[in-house]
Amino acid sequence: MNTIELIRKKRDGKQLSKEEIEYLVINFTKGKIPDYQFSAFLMAAFINGLDKKETGYLTLSMLNSGKIIDLSSIKGKKVDKHSTGGVGDKTSLIITPIVAAAGVNVPMISGRGLGHTGGTLDKLESIPGFKTNLNLTQYKKVLKKCKAVMIGQTREIAPADKLIYALRDVTATVESIPLITASIMSKKLAEGIDGLVLDVKTGSGAFMKKYEDALKLADSLTITAKEFKKNVIAFITDMNQPLGNYIGNWLEVYESIKILQGEKVEDLFELSLTLAGAMIYLGDKASSIKEGKEIAQEIISNGKAFDKFIEIVKLQGGDVSYLKNPEKYPESKYHEKIYSEKTGYVQNINTYEIGIASSELGAGRLTKEDIVDPKAGIIFYPKIGDKIKKGDIIAEIFTDKKETIDNTKKKILSSIKISKSKTRKTKLIKLIIT
Amino acid sequence: MNTIELIRKKRDGKQLSKEEIEYLVINFTKGKIPDYQFSAFLMAAFINGLDKKETGYLTLSMLNSGKIIDLSSIKGKKVDKHSTGGVGDKTSLIITPIVAAAGVNVPMISGRGLGHTGGTLDKLESIPGFKTNLNLTQYKKVLKKCKAVMIGQTREIAPADKLIYALRDVTATVESIPLITASIMSKKLAEGIDGLVLDVKTGSGAFMKKYEDALKLADSLTITAKEFKKNVIAFITDMNQPLGNYIGNWLEVYESIKILQGEKVEDLFELSLTLAGAMIYLGDKASSIKEGKEIAQEIISNGKAFDKFIEIVKLQGGDVSYLKNPEKYPESKYHEKIYSEKTGYVQNINTYEIGIASSELGAGRLTKEDIVDPKAGIIFYPKIGDKIKKGDIIAEIFTDKKETIDNTKKKILSSIKISKSKTRKTKLIKLIIT
Repeated sequence: MNTIELIRKKRDGKQLSKEEIEYLVINFTKGKIPDYQFSAFLMAAFINGLDKKETGYLTLSMLNSGKIIDLSSIKGKKVDKHSTGGVGDKTSLIITPIVAAAGVNVPMISGRGLGHTGGTLDKLESIPGFKTNLNLTQYKKVLKKCKAVMIGQTREIAPADKLIYALRDVTATVESIPLITASIMSKKLAEGIDGLVLDVKTGSGAFMKKYEDALKLADSLTITAKEFKKNVIAFITDMNQPLGNYIGNWLEVYESIKILQGEKVEDLFELSLTLAGAMIYLGDKASSIKEGKEIAQEIISNGKAFDKFIEIVKLQGGDVSYLKNPEKYPESKYHEKIYSEKTGYVQNINTYEIGIASSELGAGRLTKEDIVDPKAGIIFYPKIGDKIKKGDIIAEIFTDKKETIDNTKKKILSSIKISKSKTRKTKLIKLIIT
Repeated sequence: MNTIELIRKKRDGKQLSKEEIEYLVINFTKGKIPDYQFSAFLMAAFINGLDKKETGYLTLSMLNSGKIIDLSSIKGKKVDKHSTGGVGDKTSLIITPIVAAAGVNVPMISGRGLGHTGGTLDKLESIPGFKTNLNLTQYKKVLKKCKAVMIGQTREIAPADKLIYALRDVTATVESIPLITASIMSKKLAEGIDGLVLDVKTGSGAFMKKYEDALKLADSLTITAKEFKKNVIAFITDMNQPLGNYIGNWLEVYESIKILQGEKVEDLFELSLTLAGAMIYLGDKASSIKEGKEIAQEIISNGKAFDKFIEIVKLQGGDVSYLKNPEKYPESKYHEKIYSEKTGYVQNINTYEIGIASSELGAGRLTKEDIVDPKAGIIFYPKIGDKIKKGDIIAEIFTDKKETIDNTKKKILSSIKISKSKTRKTKLIKLIIT
């Protein structure tokens, strides 16, 4: 096979075979196909697309570039969740202990935050001592002990994805449904799971701003998952406003604790319950999503969810005293409140800007090299449809970087559009694809 | 400006500004934009296209990456010719002395052969002693003395083109009209010419196999030349059969001598006269192409054309004794004849295969690293429309590589399609764009 011929084929909109895609991925991963050829291929694939079959072949090749974790020694179903990312999306922290407490294994491998979004790893690492870089032996050990484990991407899993993603990032080939599908699915399939719940976000704080794009991605992901014989349920959910009220690493752990202890922050609570319910259902511990939700509610109410969280954190080296007494967590140097300058109804929120503001305060990475401040972030109160009065507290910000405060305040204020007439709440769960 | 944003813009089919294209070309040439980003840009430009303005900006940026030769100290008009390349296309060798003898300066910078095509430089270098690597001072000196000079691409001229071409070659982004236009025009404009004659080939031995593609390229080239205030005439000419009968470096010099000495090899003679006529017209030494052709004919008849060729070759260090007594040129180890196996009329010729056969015999390069054998090549007799009888000589081959003979014979025989019914001659000059 000839690399140039394969690039030409995709350039001319033709379909590549399994062997051809494999050839490209294997040789790129081995360093035998140089970056400049693979980036030309990626751009051709971006513009001309990859069909379902090609997306499956790409996923398979990327999956096979690394190890597929063998969890056959662990009893029971293994179910994971993947979210396409947003602002204040901390559901992984909440649902992992709930689902594990319901008897379903959750072997979760997560990523870090970049740009306007947070990442589960950064949130977990805000708990002093918590280790996310377990090796695969330790990973299995923790999973066996408590039915849940939460680590970061290891070098053994889908190394092709890491290389391809780094190249996509600098060649404007990120926002492609088939490329995103293969990237997500190759990593998730490597976990050795039986089932997968997908939370595809849409709205101003999501990668897929438009509903149609979110739908296409959700379709592509579920089709690919089914091709690999995995049970899958996809939700398209709202990201037109931050999920919950807390944004920032420790702040999100703190809000997760509140939910796990029974507090009902409307959208965050509802979504967590639904995702957990779906996972419990896929894990054969409920006969429907609805029954799964009821089980999840019960597990929160009887305290098992919070206990399981404590157990997981302890097994991964975290200091649980901060979870039990959050008030002892170190505070940011600066804590300021932002007040509304208008009266009216919240019409929409530029959630992307809120995410960027949080990153600028120190909670996230604007470039991959940035170091995250676990304490920094925002408590953001308004929800679309809320009535708001001039002088009401809109948000609180936490940072060690004094120079960011003025700009962040402006950004948060201008991200909220207030209308004089009543506005409608957004619908949280827009579609379920099974 | 941000490279990723510019790639994204072209990826999404948007128009880039002059400054944006300049930014990409300058920084790529300086090594500040890595290959993998530029190749993603090239693929996006290939698929989504560049419009006339963008093509002009790209040409300008590539032109400005190097020197523009200042020929203002040389009196009279400077006119060059560019052919898109084919098999047996030796017109540069013929028309340069004719046009110079007519009083028009011809400051020609040419390329080498690759794949199925020959290159003017390789042909010239088959003349013992001939130097094509003159520096710009020597270049001007020769031009001043004899109104013509024929050299190769220097490092000072359009260095961006060399880098971009090398990248296109390995990323399947060669066959793009705007990219080809910028590559050709940036080099030609750097010569400091007033006028340019373009010979855009179409047919089985051309890069543009289809007439419509040749037309698009001719249009794009003339529009760009006019934007740079150059007088330009483009011809679309036939490349469905080798031009003339001789293919191979010295063999083509030999046939050029024959034409310069008055022999009228039908297609080669006619095309050379037409291109020379157009150059003489653009050089203000004739009031029409037709009058230019008459002057060209006169210059051949009165011996001035051949004398001028001798003068140029001598000034560039070539041993003219071989031009005066071609029989003393060294011969190939193997010289074999190929006979027709059928009787009928020549319907078509796979000219690409003839070109490849010539390269395989040693006359060309199948990869850039191959060394060219000046003696090797083919004399190919049939023309489309000719009557041919079983046992007639079709071709003669010359090579030092015994192992290539059998395969080449087969290739040449199978490249000719013989029909039982009469076939029509092809039209040599298909269109003139002024």
